Amino acid sequence: MEETPAPRAQWLRGVLDMCLLALMSEGPVYGYEMTVRLARAGLDVADGSIYPALARLRKRELVEIERRSGDGGPARTYYSPSPAGLRMLRSWSHDWSAFAAGIGSLIDPSAREES
Amino acid sequence: MEETPAPRAQWLRGVLDMCLLALMSEGPVYGYEMTVRLARAGLDVADGSIYPALARLRKRELVEIERRSGDGGPARTYYSPSPAGLRMLRSWSHDWSAFAAGIGSLIDPSAREES
Repeated sequence: MEETPAPRAQWLRGVLDMCLLALMSEGPVYGYEMTVRLARAGLDVADGSIYPALARLRKRELVEIERRSGDGGPARTYYSPSPAGLRMLRSWSHDWSAFAAGIGSLIDPSAREES
Repeated sequence: MEETPAPRAQWLRGVLDMCLLALMSEGPVYGYEMTVRLARAGLDVADGSIYPALARLRKRELVEIERRSGDGGPARTYYSPSPAGLRMLRSWSHDWSAFAAGIGSLIDPSAREES
């Protein structure tokens, strides 16, 4: 019997934009640092795979960028949410929380009864 | 500025198989009843949209079916998870809980600090 792994990659694709906006909302951050912080939250993204998402967010004017020269290193691009990006983050986070609570109530009814 | 709605439909597609298995794991259930119970958990699926997912699960031998005649009504198809389906549900639920906790820690860092 084939044991299909959980569709984690699909789950992550659906929330990546929201997660990137959330990371930036705590202060300007560059790409590699976002990858590291995603991994620390248990969300492994392939190296470089966040850049298409960042480009898409920028094209839709949901993020703003700033180039800063590093300490002797190459200049880095720092990302921040635009005001529209912050509004979207709030709206998506709200929807996500309700969605995740709904799923949680289905996959673990005992938790629902105990709470 | 375009305000993109949250990609709820994409989120739901990624977890629908898991949710259907979870609903069945509490006892044999027919299709329409699953739709109703999903809606009660805040997960609105279009009428009939769960049937392709059920057919896929059945093809992969993750669910078993039983035809029962209704009380004067038409016979209904009741779904239950197969042993492999139950194993997959446990594995996916475990992965989902970790994933959702990771996302939660990103979109609401204050909740993480308080917990």
